[in-house]
Amino acid sequence: MPLVVQKYGGSSLADAESIKRVARRIVDTRKAGNQVCVVVSAMGDTTDELLDLADAVTPSAPERELDMLLTAGERMSMALVSMAIANLGDSARSFTGSQAGVITDDVHGKARIIDVTPGRISGALGDGHIVIVAGFQGVSQNTKEITTLGRGGSDTTAVALAAALNADVCEIYTDVDGIFTADPRIVSSAHKVDRISNEEMQEMAASGAKVLMLRCVEYARRFNLPIHVRSSFSHREGTWVYPAAEGEEDVDAEAPIIAGVAHDRSEAKITVVGVKDTPGSAAAIFNLISAQQVNIDMIVQNVSAVATGKTDVSFTLPKSDGQRAVTALQEAKDELGFESLQYDDQIGKLSLIGSGMRSHPGVSATFFQALADAGINIEMITTSEIRVSVITKGDLLDDAVRAVHTAFGLDSSEGEAVVYGGTGR
Amino acid sequence: MPLVVQKYGGSSLADAESIKRVARRIVDTRKAGNQVCVVVSAMGDTTDELLDLADAVTPSAPERELDMLLTAGERMSMALVSMAIANLGDSARSFTGSQAGVITDDVHGKARIIDVTPGRISGALGDGHIVIVAGFQGVSQNTKEITTLGRGGSDTTAVALAAALNADVCEIYTDVDGIFTADPRIVSSAHKVDRISNEEMQEMAASGAKVLMLRCVEYARRFNLPIHVRSSFSHREGTWVYPAAEGEEDVDAEAPIIAGVAHDRSEAKITVVGVKDTPGSAAAIFNLISAQQVNIDMIVQNVSAVATGKTDVSFTLPKSDGQRAVTALQEAKDELGFESLQYDDQIGKLSLIGSGMRSHPGVSATFFQALADAGINIEMITTSEIRVSVITKGDLLDDAVRAVHTAFGLDSSEGEAVVYGGTGR
Repeated sequence: MPLVVQKYGGSSLADAESIKRVARRIVDTRKAGNQVCVVVSAMGDTTDELLDLADAVTPSAPERELDMLLTAGERMSMALVSMAIANLGDSARSFTGSQAGVITDDVHGKARIIDVTPGRISGALGDGHIVIVAGFQGVSQNTKEITTLGRGGSDTTAVALAAALNADVCEIYTDVDGIFTADPRIVSSAHKVDRISNEEMQEMAASGAKVLMLRCVEYARRFNLPIHVRSSFSHREGTWVYPAAEGEEDVDAEAPIIAGVAHDRSEAKITVVGVKDTPGSAAAIFNLISAQQVNIDMIVQNVSAVATGKTDVSFTLPKSDGQRAVTALQEAKDELGFESLQYDDQIGKLSLIGSGMRSHPGVSATFFQALADAGINIEMITTSEIRVSVITKGDLLDDAVRAVHTAFGLDSSEGEAVVYGGTGR
Repeated sequence: MPLVVQKYGGSSLADAESIKRVARRIVDTRKAGNQVCVVVSAMGDTTDELLDLADAVTPSAPERELDMLLTAGERMSMALVSMAIANLGDSARSFTGSQAGVITDDVHGKARIIDVTPGRISGALGDGHIVIVAGFQGVSQNTKEITTLGRGGSDTTAVALAAALNADVCEIYTDVDGIFTADPRIVSSAHKVDRISNEEMQEMAASGAKVLMLRCVEYARRFNLPIHVRSSFSHREGTWVYPAAEGEEDVDAEAPIIAGVAHDRSEAKITVVGVKDTPGSAAAIFNLISAQQVNIDMIVQNVSAVATGKTDVSFTLPKSDGQRAVTALQEAKDELGFESLQYDDQIGKLSLIGSGMRSHPGVSATFFQALADAGINIEMITTSEIRVSVITKGDLLDDAVRAVHTAFGLDSSEGEAVVYGGTGR
């Protein structure tokens, strides 16, 4: 019997009526001849309400206790979904992350799954039950403490369970129809993508696309697991994120060269001005930042001025880490020997993603021409094999996204991207 | 270092401010030189809110899933209390019932604790932490399922943990000052009792006194553990429930003969009219009731009429089981061979409790005289060694409680019961 893992997010579980609707969909999947394992997030605003309660008690909650508190959220939704299924005459059993065998490291608040031992889940499925599992949570391997996986953690739970159970597909139910060529709130002509390679999806997620979290996509890639991202509010097909192996250039001749345009407003830029251009200067700066547990994204080092032997180093990092990094740099100013710091949190990042870039060198030229034609100045650039990203001024980001989306023929109401390039494919 | 187990009920944890107040009290207990293990109920109305959610999803929730849902309540409160303690600069660790080693049978919704293996609790206490444990919940020994203990379960958790940890005292914090000689809402002159024997407390709880649940008192008796029932809203001493051994008649010469007057409106009365007065007739009736999982309290069988050889059998049972029992009896009417059934749920039960009854035979006479003087008719009577209970009409119960309270000299504003009887003690 095929095994389907489904994941429902908080917006699909906002209230009792939503829960009943989700239960109906789960039961229908079971009746269609599948074993069904369901991963649920906390209902609607539950997590925010719990965080408000914590804030009312203390300004700085210990992370272990915060995890204890937040995991109550999925516990409620899993039990309610299970009850709603029972009310439809089918049999369901709910399990916490710990009971489901979701084993993590011991980093509270953003634990990583390191193993899944789904013995109880397999047993319950084998006994003919529908299984409901609390997403976003696990138990640490060494300390046996309750952990949470951080943002998007329920998606990761679903993919990890699907991999461990050797499921046929992992369906991620959300409140949008799938993955879009760009954020429809910015680009009104953006359309749903029917298929996208896992590799492309990874770049999209890493570049700010919010439908799927990066970690979940990485996990699916590692286990060669197809993900079907779709809406819990309709029965339309969503977007299939197919495994990497299948996504190699010559295998899927129908795949468009460009998968989509992603954007991200969560980064800030720091420029360290007047750094001595000697070996080890940049390393000293980034060692310092790294010691603050700050993840750096893009880095640009200018060509040094011949007269002074000095240069500027710019890098981007999460806005939320900005002040911490600036403070650390200021405190080490003498030691590092730079002249001044510039901090800019009014920036935007735009990324064009497509595995077709590998074989189509014209992509970059079209990309930069489109931005130039729209009068948008580029502050930083990075590229990967299948992605090109630029930093622009924050207030120009929407224009930039629209210009690039149009230039690559992604504006289409038929839900089909125009294939770029001259290969005739 | 002395070890104190404290339990705080939902009314003491109604909101963030209450939680901070409780945290302050816990930290003060720790600073006074004690190890502290705290058991918490769910906050204020949380349990009712969770039940409302379940009702909105299904009219008949599976009990396993209901336990999963309800246990989220204490999970929230334990984490929040722990955070509030951290905010005061002390260190706390919260544990679920399962983590705390509260092992139960597998009866969802009203599980019994069958073992406590508090290894993690002892470890955390030994490491210098204050420990917060979720009350009302455990994990079943055989099936490893999450269970709840039923009404008053958090008190039982506290006593069971106190026994397993060999604590010096178990403090039960509530919203009243302690155990009263009668319900102050009925008897305005009722006063707090400073000390009561566990044996008396058991009879009080079994007779309808609501401050402590019967199961918790039984547990404390078995482990010879003193309980201190007190208010979380003041620092006054409450009522000490001292172990049975200490409570023997001649040991505590200061103990009043009468501990208090309890009442109960939760019972109904069934009279089976015209039962053949032959061996086995009554047994057949009570076998039938017992098969319905109904607990019978009082039983009276009339003297049979010589002319007919028939008699009437009356018994009391929880109102909530009344219709079930009546239906079962009606269906077996021919088999049991009775004439008719009478069902009365407008009854009240009044109980006078005191270990002094053992040596003071005048107590019963005073009791019945007081009821007679107040014009209250008695429908049924039962007694134990230290209790006498009667059934009255429901609308006369309050009058009956007041009459008996006065007759035994319990009306006192000084918080000291007048000693009854002529022994000069």
